[in-house]
Amino acid sequence: MVSIIMGSRSDLRVMGAAAEVLDELKVEYSLTIVSAHRTPERLFDFAKNARKNGIKVIIAGAGGAAHLPGMVASLTSLPVIGVPVKSSNSIDGWDSVLSILQMPSGVPVATVALDGAKNAGILAAQILGTSDEELAIRLDNFKEALKEKVIADVENINANGWKDLV
Amino acid sequence: MVSIIMGSRSDLRVMGAAAEVLDELKVEYSLTIVSAHRTPERLFDFAKNARKNGIKVIIAGAGGAAHLPGMVASLTSLPVIGVPVKSSNSIDGWDSVLSILQMPSGVPVATVALDGAKNAGILAAQILGTSDEELAIRLDNFKEALKEKVIADVENINANGWKDLV
Amino acid sequence: MVSIIMGSRSDLRVMGAAAEVLDELKVEYSLTIVSAHRTPERLFDFAKNARKNGIKVIIAGAGGAAHLPGMVASLTSLPVIGVPVKSSNSIDGWDSVLSILQMPSGVPVATVALDGAKNAGILAAQILGTSDEELAIRLDNFKEALKEKVIADVENINANGWKDLV
Amino acid sequence: MVSIIMGSRSDLRVMGAAAEVLDELKVEYSLTIVSAHRTPERLFDFAKNARKNGIKVIIAGAGGAAHLPGMVASLTSLPVIGVPVKSSNSIDGWDSVLSILQMPSGVPVATVALDGAKNAGILAAQILGTSDEELAIRLDNFKEALKEKVIADVENINANGWKDLV
Amino acid sequence: MVSIIMGSRSDLRVMGAAAEVLDELKVEYSLTIVSAHRTPERLFDFAKNARKNGIKVIIAGAGGAAHLPGMVASLTSLPVIGVPVKSSNSIDGWDSVLSILQMPSGVPVATVALDGAKNAGILAAQILGTSDEELAIRLDNFKEALKEKVIADVENINANGWKDLV
Amino acid sequence: MVSIIMGSRSDLRVMGAAAEVLDELKVEYSLTIVSAHRTPERLFDFAKNARKNGIKVIIAGAGGAAHLPGMVASLTSLPVIGVPVKSSNSIDGWDSVLSILQMPSGVPVATVALDGAKNAGILAAQILGTSDEELAIRLDNFKEALKEKVIADVENINANGWKDLV
Amino acid sequence: MVSIIMGSRSDLRVMGAAAEVLDELKVEYSLTIVSAHRTPERLFDFAKNARKNGIKVIIAGAGGAAHLPGMVASLTSLPVIGVPVKSSNSIDGWDSVLSILQMPSGVPVATVALDGAKNAGILAAQILGTSDEELAIRLDNFKEALKEKVIADVENINANGWKDLV
Amino acid sequence: MVSIIMGSRSDLRVMGAAAEVLDELKVEYSLTIVSAHRTPERLFDFAKNARKNGIKVIIAGAGGAAHLPGMVASLTSLPVIGVPVKSSNSIDGWDSVLSILQMPSGVPVATVALDGAKNAGILAAQILGTSDEELAIRLDNFKEALKEKVIADVENINANGWKDLV
Repeated sequence: MVSIIMGSRSDLRVMGAAAEVLDELKVEYSLTIVSAHRTPERLFDFAKNARKNGIKVIIAGAGGAAHLPGMVASLTSLPVIGVPVKSSNSIDGWDSVLSILQMPSGVPVATVALDGAKNAGILAAQILGTSDEELAIRLDNFKEALKEKVIADVENINANGWKDLV
Repeated sequence: MVSIIMGSRSDLRVMGAAAEVLDELKVEYSLTIVSAHRTPERLFDFAKNARKNGIKVIIAGAGGAAHLPGMVASLTSLPVIGVPVKSSNSIDGWDSVLSILQMPSGVPVATVALDGAKNAGILAAQILGTSDEELAIRLDNFKEALKEKVIADVENINANGWKDLV
Repeated sequence: MVSIIMGSRSDLRVMGAAAEVLDELKVEYSLTIVSAHRTPERLFDFAKNARKNGIKVIIAGAGGAAHLPGMVASLTSLPVIGVPVKSSNSIDGWDSVLSILQMPSGVPVATVALDGAKNAGILAAQILGTSDEELAIRLDNFKEALKEKVIADVENINANGWKDLV
Repeated sequence: MVSIIMGSRSDLRVMGAAAEVLDELKVEYSLTIVSAHRTPERLFDFAKNARKNGIKVIIAGAGGAAHLPGMVASLTSLPVIGVPVKSSNSIDGWDSVLSILQMPSGVPVATVALDGAKNAGILAAQILGTSDEELAIRLDNFKEALKEKVIADVENINANGWKDLV
Repeated sequence: MVSIIMGSRSDLRVMGAAAEVLDELKVEYSLTIVSAHRTPERLFDFAKNARKNGIKVIIAGAGGAAHLPGMVASLTSLPVIGVPVKSSNSIDGWDSVLSILQMPSGVPVATVALDGAKNAGILAAQILGTSDEELAIRLDNFKEALKEKVIADVENINANGWKDLV
Repeated sequence: MVSIIMGSRSDLRVMGAAAEVLDELKVEYSLTIVSAHRTPERLFDFAKNARKNGIKVIIAGAGGAAHLPGMVASLTSLPVIGVPVKSSNSIDGWDSVLSILQMPSGVPVATVALDGAKNAGILAAQILGTSDEELAIRLDNFKEALKEKVIADVENINANGWKDLV
Repeated sequence: MVSIIMGSRSDLRVMGAAAEVLDELKVEYSLTIVSAHRTPERLFDFAKNARKNGIKVIIAGAGGAAHLPGMVASLTSLPVIGVPVKSSNSIDGWDSVLSILQMPSGVPVATVALDGAKNAGILAAQILGTSDEELAIRLDNFKEALKEKVIADVENINANGWKDLV
Repeated sequence: MVSIIMGSRSDLRVMGAAAEVLDELKVEYSLTIVSAHRTPERLFDFAKNARKNGIKVIIAGAGGAAHLPGMVASLTSLPVIGVPVKSSNSIDGWDSVLSILQMPSGVPVATVALDGAKNAGILAAQILGTSDEELAIRLDNFKEALKEKVIADVENINANGWKDLV
């Protein structure tokens, strides 16, 4: 199971995309709020018990001085995917990115693009897909669908010219 | 099996740390050079056949306009871990970081810190550990050892004062 | 012939300006979508066959971790002009700029300004103008027209004062 | 009492300056290592018990994705001073600065300059000086001494010219 | 008593939050405008007399080349909290942050996040709380309330699903 | 013919690589110093007469507030390749990059990577190769040689392990 | 006399403030458009003849790769004040700032803040005020008026509270 | 007379170049240390009395959170030239640049390049040259000498090839 957590209710706007793509890929997940700075004990309980609660991958999103992904990673040896959120109190997203990405040696966080919650969901599925062949096939199909959407745009341009597609 | 690839021989200085930590964690891996810009066909062959060649996780390191991790991710649905390398032609590492991290929706790369090859190795092991309980235990022990090294430093300070440890 | 490609339909908003200036300069071009990350095989076919398909210059636009221009340049020895697009998933355009500009030694991309598709079109024409004297003359006339527009503004200020022109 | 903590033994090189200036200002302190990412339980114990252990101000230094100051601040209502350390794994110090400074609303960290441990010590003394008049006087004298050193340089230039002082 | 000052009337939009949280924490304060660049003599008088006027902590907010917090800190040994304001003439807030944070050795400013006036108020209260046990208790209660708000959101998600909370 | 110009003698250290690769590709070139800021009349004469002097492509390198490439481009409709040089008076190369890359609409400069003089030489050859089939073949061979060097490294690793190549 | 020039009509929105403050300070000026990239000969004529045309100070505003102030400074020994304009094609203003500020040794440009045209006007007046005592007095009065506006805000707060002034 | 001031003795390494070029241009100057943060009263006295002490232009250099140039400018209506110094406690010079350049409306500082003390000296001379024809001629000669040095390098390349000049 994938667990999606985020630092604040306001992150739902971004983090919902992780849930949606996991739905699309038929991967089970739970979603809740865990604030590193406002509910540190809750963070500890969540992370210490994650593996025994059947969680296999954790997606953690946060903005500004974003400590949630890294602190969860310090408390579990499960893979942790970090989503830097460009929250309202962020300096153009740089703080969110750097405080998630630049983890010290020994404690990795798998960081995705700024506001890249959808990619976090796909990455979680890819991780589970390393031991779930059916999910791997669904991921290949998902990849194929991305391609088909581009080809449809190409054919549209070829048929109607590009000016209509702007 | 983990596959460690990198864009150039000069990246070995950084990327070797991924191999070393996988050795330490008793995870099998192969290591080679695949250049996105100088051997694009080799990149295609590598990535298209990775899953059928038994690879489960790919670690890809590159510097500057670093396209290797993202292009591999475009050609396989295996999880791809990207290591931004602060190569000699990089602008303080920013180009390496941004050209690996900021992948478009649909094609994630699990990015670690600048020159964070050791963390890439640990993350690859964590991914395999989601379906390998013995590896999960080795990862917990690895985490424990990190802690013990800190505690040893703490005791050293307590016994001898901090000035000797600078 | 100039080939204008871009990573996604949403780049048309920016990249259309390359087509328009080539129209103005009476330079033949084609325009299509080639996504490095969603249609990598299409990228390979396009780039490997570009020269034999009569293409002389390639203009490639992309945003975020923008790998399209560099990957095309890795697969052809035609000149490739890269347009960093400030797409919605970009960090203020820095990722687009750096992942196109900072190509490794051996594989250049001629990078223009952020969202500088018009300049990419002019540059493509200048490249063709090195062996097409009539085009070179049209480029000189284009330059002359830029100047005349400034002079018209100057005369307008002299006649009516600057406050009306704000 | 002031407590000086830092994320790693390698931070001693920078953080020692906080201890030295507290010695100079005759302020009692303890110094130890607490790693947010390698010893998270130790961090919890330290921070939860800080007030009852007689600590009045905490100085916390860390580099890279520096979570120590913010996580301590999440667990205590004592004032926490954060020192961004330009560690070897830092991107020119920006990650250290932003991951300490940009705390969310409700949980402040009093951040000083990059590698500014000496100022962290002075600030801790200023905080204690709000209820310790003798310390306040020592701080005024410290300020006076800063001034006198400048005046000595001025007189040196006046007497000998500036070229000898370069 | 806490003194809240700011460089310009336009900073009130941001700095008002410091006053509001001090009201909430029942900490006495005054608020006024002191411009480093337009009223330097007023700045001198304010800062030189702050301690003798019964002020214990100063909160100073300013934007752009923000010299107010640092200049106040040069003229008093009271703790000075600096709030970088993202004013209209600021380059994305970087100028405000760096010109407050990067104080030279000997003259600290306790810097909070960009536009972080609320945290400045809380930090001022924490400083006073080092010698005021009742205030320390109010601060602990404030912290508890932050936690309860998160828990309410968690329960809301558990009861109604996350989509309603976006 | 290609003309290589640079703003100062100190740029030779970087710009020499453009000359060397043009030698390797058997492309004729001249090389001289033209300073936008110290010899503006020389810049004017050079650029205004470039086309009639038989120049087909201009490579211009400069550092700091680098105006040479853009000013040359304002005075000729030949393609101008700009090389941002990380000179001693540059802020980490950002000034060199931005003052060459960010040309206004109408006046393109084909910008290469920071200190990317070798790529500037290759790009100049690619431009001439659009109307010189033999040069195009030499460029394809050059590309092939890049590939072979990678393959040699790969075989070296396969034969001897990676540790010897670090 | 002060000469205000700018690279494009669109800069009038910003540069008009220089004219307005010179009106207020009763300093004579002219205002026109000179584009470095579109009218380079006009730039040369303007700058070479500036001193003999009775100009004493030049204010030059431009955005993006802003070469106008520096090129004017290369052609005259009059003081040149540069105004970085945050134009629509600018990367958050960084390109405008760096390409004006970072002039090489020997050719200064007196740079003011991003969009700081009003300050450019004041600085031009200060320069003329070094040899015009009446203007110096008007500048002192101008400074006094800045102060009085702050004091009026202070009194307003004292009388009515701060909440009405937000 | 020109007055050269700087925040600390360590700035002499950079600021000495202002004095040397003023010597070369035969412009009278004084040089001393005035620290905004360590000797604020000295700063006040200096700036308030500058005009009456016969000073016509002030050159002020400082690093980090560099408040000296701006605070001097707030206290006098003389032109103030700011030199951002890349001091040891600076974040790559960005703090020095932004805290000098980004002055609020009403109080300009004429900022030169990072470590650009020589240009500050030339600019001061240019300002005095607006009312001193002989100095204006010396400045034109200085400009001519810059040109001649470039021409000598050009001739050297023409005579001996470029490889000897690297």
